Amino acid sequence: MNRNFLYLTRAGIDTHQEPVVYMREDCHVCHSEGFDAQGRVEVCTGQTSIIATLNIVTGDFLSHEKAALSEAAWRLLGASEGDKAFFRHAPPVDSMSVVRGKLYGKTISAEGAHSIISDISQGRYSDIQMSAYVTACAANNLNLAETIAITRAMVDVGRRFEWGKGRIIVDKHCVGGLPGNRTTPIVVAIVAANGLVMPKTSSRAITSPAGTADTMETLTHVRLAFDQMRAVVEQQGACLAWGGSVSLSPTDDVIIRVERALDLDSEGQLVASVISKKVAAGSTHVLIDIPVGATAKVRSTALANTLADRLRQTGEALGLTINVLFSNGSQPVGRGIGPALEAADLLAVLRNEPGAPADLRERSLTLAAALLEMGGLGSADHCLQLAQQTLDSGAAWNKFEAICLAQGALKKLPVAAFTHDIVAARAGVIAMINNRVMSRLASLAGAPSSPAAGVYLHVSVGDVVEPGSVLMTLHAEAAGELEYALDFYQSHPDVVHIEAEIV
Amino acid sequence: MNRNFLYLTRAGIDTHQEPVVYMREDCHVCHSEGFDAQGRVEVCTGQTSIIATLNIVTGDFLSHEKAALSEAAWRLLGASEGDKAFFRHAPPVDSMSVVRGKLYGKTISAEGAHSIISDISQGRYSDIQMSAYVTACAANNLNLAETIAITRAMVDVGRRFEWGKGRIIVDKHCVGGLPGNRTTPIVVAIVAANGLVMPKTSSRAITSPAGTADTMETLTHVRLAFDQMRAVVEQQGACLAWGGSVSLSPTDDVIIRVERALDLDSEGQLVASVISKKVAAGSTHVLIDIPVGATAKVRSTALANTLADRLRQTGEALGLTINVLFSNGSQPVGRGIGPALEAADLLAVLRNEPGAPADLRERSLTLAAALLEMGGLGSADHCLQLAQQTLDSGAAWNKFEAICLAQGALKKLPVAAFTHDIVAARAGVIAMINNRVMSRLASLAGAPSSPAAGVYLHVSVGDVVEPGSVLMTLHAEAAGELEYALDFYQSHPDVVHIEAEIV
Repeated sequence: MNRNFLYLTRAGIDTHQEPVVYMREDCHVCHSEGFDAQGRVEVCTGQTSIIATLNIVTGDFLSHEKAALSEAAWRLLGASEGDKAFFRHAPPVDSMSVVRGKLYGKTISAEGAHSIISDISQGRYSDIQMSAYVTACAANNLNLAETIAITRAMVDVGRRFEWGKGRIIVDKHCVGGLPGNRTTPIVVAIVAANGLVMPKTSSRAITSPAGTADTMETLTHVRLAFDQMRAVVEQQGACLAWGGSVSLSPTDDVIIRVERALDLDSEGQLVASVISKKVAAGSTHVLIDIPVGATAKVRSTALANTLADRLRQTGEALGLTINVLFSNGSQPVGRGIGPALEAADLLAVLRNEPGAPADLRERSLTLAAALLEMGGLGSADHCLQLAQQTLDSGAAWNKFEAICLAQGALKKLPVAAFTHDIVAARAGVIAMINNRVMSRLASLAGAPSSPAAGVYLHVSVGDVVEPGSVLMTLHAEAAGELEYALDFYQSHPDVVHIEAEIV
Repeated sequence: MNRNFLYLTRAGIDTHQEPVVYMREDCHVCHSEGFDAQGRVEVCTGQTSIIATLNIVTGDFLSHEKAALSEAAWRLLGASEGDKAFFRHAPPVDSMSVVRGKLYGKTISAEGAHSIISDISQGRYSDIQMSAYVTACAANNLNLAETIAITRAMVDVGRRFEWGKGRIIVDKHCVGGLPGNRTTPIVVAIVAANGLVMPKTSSRAITSPAGTADTMETLTHVRLAFDQMRAVVEQQGACLAWGGSVSLSPTDDVIIRVERALDLDSEGQLVASVISKKVAAGSTHVLIDIPVGATAKVRSTALANTLADRLRQTGEALGLTINVLFSNGSQPVGRGIGPALEAADLLAVLRNEPGAPADLRERSLTLAAALLEMGGLGSADHCLQLAQQTLDSGAAWNKFEAICLAQGALKKLPVAAFTHDIVAARAGVIAMINNRVMSRLASLAGAPSSPAAGVYLHVSVGDVVEPGSVLMTLHAEAAGELEYALDFYQSHPDVVHIEAEIV
């Protein structure tokens, strides 16, 4: 008879993705199992089991008969209040031997990749183990075969859309790093208005002030379940959903979070992340935009070429047609940086408003045209004309509206309660805008968790300013956040770099 | 005016070494700072500041005006209930760039090593970052210069004993992996009885069923403060203290914990760990015992040679004289495995009791003789005789008793409430005892946190047994733990491998 059980309760503690179980140090299970703080523990209910990290409760807030679960553990286990759970030392995670092998110079085989990704998808890796995996794959440490194996494994552990054999399904991805570069909703509208199928899923921001999903969430519902997303695409030919809600390549978020915490890029892992989500979305033809610039994510053409090759080869190995496009990554795109501010920009472009940012419009047209061409709608020139017509005629706006309504709403944008203008201290020409510092400024103002927050840019590179010209307006939902962003600006006044003009 | 403060309270949650701060998601600080779950947050009181990982409280147990700290955070900050603390996003940890550089193929410089170890010692690395550092150094990825740099840095961040210029200070270290191999207290007694100085600090078990500190704790006080340890050594010429209480090489425990969680050895890190503690203890002449055996930590003579070279070279770079000795690592040493059971073995040897385990006595004499020789007390033969005499005459026992009393007590050993004999299922010869499985068995019985728990072996390799012969006795302090060990035994009955004799 196994008496090693406790009744489950919800701790009300959010530890992000790491499942944590809280237990009293003097409870009978801790004692009889010899559990220690930070040990890995298997939690089994009748139906299912998870591995969680143990935090020992030395205070009085938990009963001896109970074990509390963090939000992640609660979710993963599908627990209900009062469920009976059994506990034991977690068995070693076998696939960690593949990670150790990699460190000793072995390559990761297809089976090895599958076992690692499968264990990660079941939450069997602790943060410490996740970090070791990410570190082992970091730098340029994955070869093409390994990258392909990991990509395939990432697809296999998630759900996958099928849109019918032989159909062309288009998709796009931007490698990122440019604040305000919110072309996707415009591109989707143009492409779908021309009859192509584009089941677009996007991510939320990780360290940036807005992901496409954050921006779209200020306009419509983006948390679509798998079947909802299918229905929207079947009705409208496209959607603008959050990828996290449809379980495509579910390990991706977990891996990315650790990469960000380490500020560590892995080219192989980046490629696997992008390609696996496209394959899972059922895409066949994918356009990849790599902005290249000194303060963008990809800093040189040489690096962009290597990345493009790897993306193309991996995509092709998984049956995709990949086109890559390098774009100018020298400064932010549009005026707004932050979910609602970026949404305002893209609405202005879609509605052909007079003040609509021309750079956002141009970028969107270029990408849409390339996708129309990949979709077989004619030559490059013809497709560019087609894209322009679609936008100018209002057909793209109509399609966008229809997609939003199919997803459940077209919402009114939120407005920030606090704003503050930042002005030029001296006369000159705007010589540079630092993408990275600008992103951080918008984040500190509260974006994306405060959707109305961010930065509104009044200038672009090349503009001439006088002392007192407004450079940008900070938007915040709370006074404290505004202050915080201002503090940061004061220590980084050069985010918009003004060079005195030589007379 | 900065209003980003909360009042500190103790969460009563033990997260081991990772400092964690708990905050309500709807408190004004979380909101104004834009903190997210698992983010890294700087917590500042007037005097001091730490970096902690944020867990977001979604339940009701914490007030909006308070932030709760895990035990590690509470300790590190030296907080008191109700202290006012300010919070902000933790600045990036600069030394992580050295870790990233290592992954991209750069070597770790002396300054780089110092910045990493200094940040670790101040608790600035999250578990995820610790894991990246350990992974980057794993396998055989540190060269000699890097190993020396890290060793030196580990010494620099802790306290260091000085025993007087020109004096010979001896020390020993065992690389480990053999259950029951508790020679240190016997060696210290013999060596100190002969007038040499041996300021011995030992570690607690990490995954093994007992460390020397755990065993000694069943006999005396081992938590000596720095000055207490100095006083004991000045009075008795030696001590048997727990290293953790005297802050020698304080980063070592943190690093080892992560290595164990990953089951990842780093030769360079192992060497740095050993040598840094010896230097910090003020030792000049160090004997290192490497047990070699199929189920020991070091599995072959080739691996032992590489490790020995690295230990010798690193030790010499830090001014130590290092002798290395390979010993037989084929089976457990003595009878007892577990703190009190091992203490009983070493008392039996020190007191020349008739049933004293001969293998433990022989090993201790060999090591003691080697140290006496290093200490300048004569030839190898002479020193072996001297060691034997010291033991046989009772002088070693007297010295051991005096050291224990100087440390505050000579305690009576605890006895397990529950025991269970495991008997041979068939006749034959004991062909092998698996050190790793045996360690796990003793751990599951409760060692070392239940000091009386463990395994008492009745047989050694080569012994002939009949069906029903007692092979070993499990000792436990709780019925549940006994059951747990028995379950494990039933799935690993071959831990003591019996071969049928060919007639």
